[in-house]
Amino acid sequence: MSGEAMASRYFIIYSGKKPTVIEKVKEIEEFIKSRGFIVDSIQIDEVMENGIPADIEALIVLGGDGTLLKSISRLPRSSIPILTINYGRGGYLMNVEPENSIEAVEKILEGRYLVEKTLMLSFKAEGRKIGNALNEAYISPAVPGKIMEFTIMKKGTVFYSGICDALIISTPIGSTAYAFSAGGPAVDNTLESAVIVPVCPLTNTRPVVLAIDEKFIVMAQSRFNLQVLIDGHIQSVFGGNIKLEVEKSEDHVLFINFEGYISFARRIQKRFK
Amino acid sequence: MSGEAMASRYFIIYSGKKPTVIEKVKEIEEFIKSRGFIVDSIQIDEVMENGIPADIEALIVLGGDGTLLKSISRLPRSSIPILTINYGRGGYLMNVEPENSIEAVEKILEGRYLVEKTLMLSFKAEGRKIGNALNEAYISPAVPGKIMEFTIMKKGTVFYSGICDALIISTPIGSTAYAFSAGGPAVDNTLESAVIVPVCPLTNTRPVVLAIDEKFIVMAQSRFNLQVLIDGHIQSVFGGNIKLEVEKSEDHVLFINFEGYISFARRIQKRFK
Amino acid sequence: MSGEAMASRYFIIYSGKKPTVIEKVKEIEEFIKSRGFIVDSIQIDEVMENGIPADIEALIVLGGDGTLLKSISRLPRSSIPILTINYGRGGYLMNVEPENSIEAVEKILEGRYLVEKTLMLSFKAEGRKIGNALNEAYISPAVPGKIMEFTIMKKGTVFYSGICDALIISTPIGSTAYAFSAGGPAVDNTLESAVIVPVCPLTNTRPVVLAIDEKFIVMAQSRFNLQVLIDGHIQSVFGGNIKLEVEKSEDHVLFINFEGYISFARRIQKRFK
Amino acid sequence: MSGEAMASRYFIIYSGKKPTVIEKVKEIEEFIKSRGFIVDSIQIDEVMENGIPADIEALIVLGGDGTLLKSISRLPRSSIPILTINYGRGGYLMNVEPENSIEAVEKILEGRYLVEKTLMLSFKAEGRKIGNALNEAYISPAVPGKIMEFTIMKKGTVFYSGICDALIISTPIGSTAYAFSAGGPAVDNTLESAVIVPVCPLTNTRPVVLAIDEKFIVMAQSRFNLQVLIDGHIQSVFGGNIKLEVEKSEDHVLFINFEGYISFARRIQKRFK
Repeated sequence: MSGEAMASRYFIIYSGKKPTVIEKVKEIEEFIKSRGFIVDSIQIDEVMENGIPADIEALIVLGGDGTLLKSISRLPRSSIPILTINYGRGGYLMNVEPENSIEAVEKILEGRYLVEKTLMLSFKAEGRKIGNALNEAYISPAVPGKIMEFTIMKKGTVFYSGICDALIISTPIGSTAYAFSAGGPAVDNTLESAVIVPVCPLTNTRPVVLAIDEKFIVMAQSRFNLQVLIDGHIQSVFGGNIKLEVEKSEDHVLFINFEGYISFARRIQKRFK
Repeated sequence: MSGEAMASRYFIIYSGKKPTVIEKVKEIEEFIKSRGFIVDSIQIDEVMENGIPADIEALIVLGGDGTLLKSISRLPRSSIPILTINYGRGGYLMNVEPENSIEAVEKILEGRYLVEKTLMLSFKAEGRKIGNALNEAYISPAVPGKIMEFTIMKKGTVFYSGICDALIISTPIGSTAYAFSAGGPAVDNTLESAVIVPVCPLTNTRPVVLAIDEKFIVMAQSRFNLQVLIDGHIQSVFGGNIKLEVEKSEDHVLFINFEGYISFARRIQKRFK
Repeated sequence: MSGEAMASRYFIIYSGKKPTVIEKVKEIEEFIKSRGFIVDSIQIDEVMENGIPADIEALIVLGGDGTLLKSISRLPRSSIPILTINYGRGGYLMNVEPENSIEAVEKILEGRYLVEKTLMLSFKAEGRKIGNALNEAYISPAVPGKIMEFTIMKKGTVFYSGICDALIISTPIGSTAYAFSAGGPAVDNTLESAVIVPVCPLTNTRPVVLAIDEKFIVMAQSRFNLQVLIDGHIQSVFGGNIKLEVEKSEDHVLFINFEGYISFARRIQKRFK
Repeated sequence: MSGEAMASRYFIIYSGKKPTVIEKVKEIEEFIKSRGFIVDSIQIDEVMENGIPADIEALIVLGGDGTLLKSISRLPRSSIPILTINYGRGGYLMNVEPENSIEAVEKILEGRYLVEKTLMLSFKAEGRKIGNALNEAYISPAVPGKIMEFTIMKKGTVFYSGICDALIISTPIGSTAYAFSAGGPAVDNTLESAVIVPVCPLTNTRPVVLAIDEKFIVMAQSRFNLQVLIDGHIQSVFGGNIKLEVEKSEDHVLFINFEGYISFARRIQKRFK
């Protein structure tokens, strides 16, 4: 080997079986190889079973927000930067459109990119970690169309209580996803906060943007089992009483961006179209 | 008896086991008997099993909206007038407060009351009647936190389509119940209409008040089974595709009211408190 | 004369000075003349000064909602049917797109059209009529950013009260205009109702759809003068206390439509885009 | 002088002429004097003319949010801590209820209090400072019921544009005031952000919570003069085109609080009642 460095390795995850996506994956793979780097590609369903190798320089995801959220839940370490290429309907988290993808990949190979460190919220139930949310947790009775009571506490103080069908606890970056559909505001990526939005509130309860300088508590109660759904795919079911601890996760997601690009501006523009 | 008329018969349904409710039921029963009429009382859970006799002059319900909605689903004929006495949290459909209940009963026995004919919506799925709604139908995937697509058609024309977590199809009188929690307007009892409110819409879809001069169609589609929940307690589960026909029911509910009382004004005041 | 009927007369009103509009006006004029009918055209600003002749078969308006609303306020009699051709940004009230306008005019000349009778709301202040609204009245302090108190009464009963920056009282057809921007629902053309929407309410006051079987009263009070703005262009200023009487106007607007066309479906589709 | 320190001086501002307020002012004055300190009291209208002395230890304001906002605009230096005693209708900014006021004053005299440093937003128009907002700026045409176009820019990038009746740019602490009435979220005091809420948007524009790590620009345009109203009482009128620069003010307001008291929890509870 005589001191020679190993070639850098990249990893591509893609969704679905659309020919356009698969063609683009091939195009990117060939481009990366032509520059002398190593690259593998894999369909998202296989990732959920087999995971993502830890020794990669960057992850490239082609798909929509759902594919990205699943990929992130399988990341072996949170220090892997991610390039997101939009093949989704909403694609609020996807920074690059397909027509600009080769140019973006080229910049990555040449190291001409920025990294946007994006916070996640950590959710614990009864002292046990149930997951990190890049977008949000959706807390509801396990039966649709039923109500629950909730209380938000922080620093030992009850902030407010209410009755609703469900409660969405969103990150800033998730504020333009589920929480937005439920009537929440668009919140800037950099504000260290949780956006708490009640769904179908019976009480006069409205969206709240809460600082996450300290953990906060969500107590919920229902005549039915309660369910927590994180990022649309990590599901936990509990009895009719839960106490969730929510705080800034120690892990981050590193999104790849480029000079002059403001992902919050893009998220707003997509939502206000 | 030689041609003597039978004494008029009344029927009381009450909710829960609260001593205050049971005492009030006794007080009303004694009052009715003291005037020479026949009266029976029964707890709501028994009604769901045993039904309501058909030969009564009026039904008296003590409880909240839930108790009333269940009672109505067991009415043997829709021409029975109903006095509603409020022991519920919201009680948007309950016209009389407990402290005025004896006075109200007296007026009924003496025939000094008005009847407010209140429309219901009839729901058919795949040609089969699944229920009448006094308040609303809640259509959603059977799994919480999942989306569905829907299309509203009338007179052979697509009115609009959207994507949401659930769709509420409410009567005017139900507009201050579930539909209101989902962001709908308060609609006057007498407007022959359906209030269509999407829950957590992904699309730019907002509440619509649709005339029901003709039936309309709701098409819904999801990757999960779909559920229709009528008035919070009549549940039907379908596959991932349904076509609902919604129209003004041939049945009505007859609420007992009194001179100078406007139930819509009361509903608004409760909601805007 | 020898029994010969006079040729039917048509009248065109158009907005602005855009060459495309003026060309289309010429095209329509030539088409009408080629069929042996009489036609005149006039710019909207002149209409506001000179009015509209009474002896016309139909009025053709090319422009946006504003042009139409002004034209209607100058109609010599409400029995003149109106064809609306959309050159506006929103154009919620404009039934025909420019590319279909000649076809629509042809149908009118041949009598192959339907008429949609559309209600207006009549507003009286202190017993004096101040105008008919096809869309809405906007009631506010004459100074922006200030609050007023209001009370809605009907049948001698207070329905509700509140504090807000302004109150919008809309017709059903106006529900997708100003009232919609303020958070109101889309209401079907045929529901005889007023949509009451508070702007920036300090109190828990939400949109209400009120039946107009009888007149209703709006009381308003402010530390500043109060202003009523009808359909965006009829302005009346009052002192700090007003009592408005609102009821279904005896006048209607007759919109020209065609078989299979549902204007409410079109209004929704434009708003939910 | 012989080395003796001057006695500390306090200053009381109160609103209105209500006997209860004036009595409480007297009670507080006597209490402060009884402890050997100097105190003066003045009605808010006189403050607007004569100002507030600079050499005081603390300012005590009795009234509602309006009185407080006016007082703050007359503060000679932003390092004066303020005790707020609630005699207002809303009183979202008033931390102490009248019945606890003597106890609160005692703690101040003894130095047993905390100070909550609260950010203000600085507004410049055409390079000229027009004011600091503790609550918000309300930007609108000078004529009610008219629209304006706006664009939000930051870091040289257009974030979004829209058409509306007015735009509210609020601080976090102002988020439960005017911005809340316009549909905005409740935002935590400590999040360094501006809450941007459109009033009656014609476009699909919703509330945005924007980080204020850098200044941002609001461009507005109308066919009418434009008006900026800061904290409900500082009014500036411009032509039909303005460019506002908004940034975190160098000045702060120092609210006096006490151990275990969370003013954001109190603001939410008041709003969600």
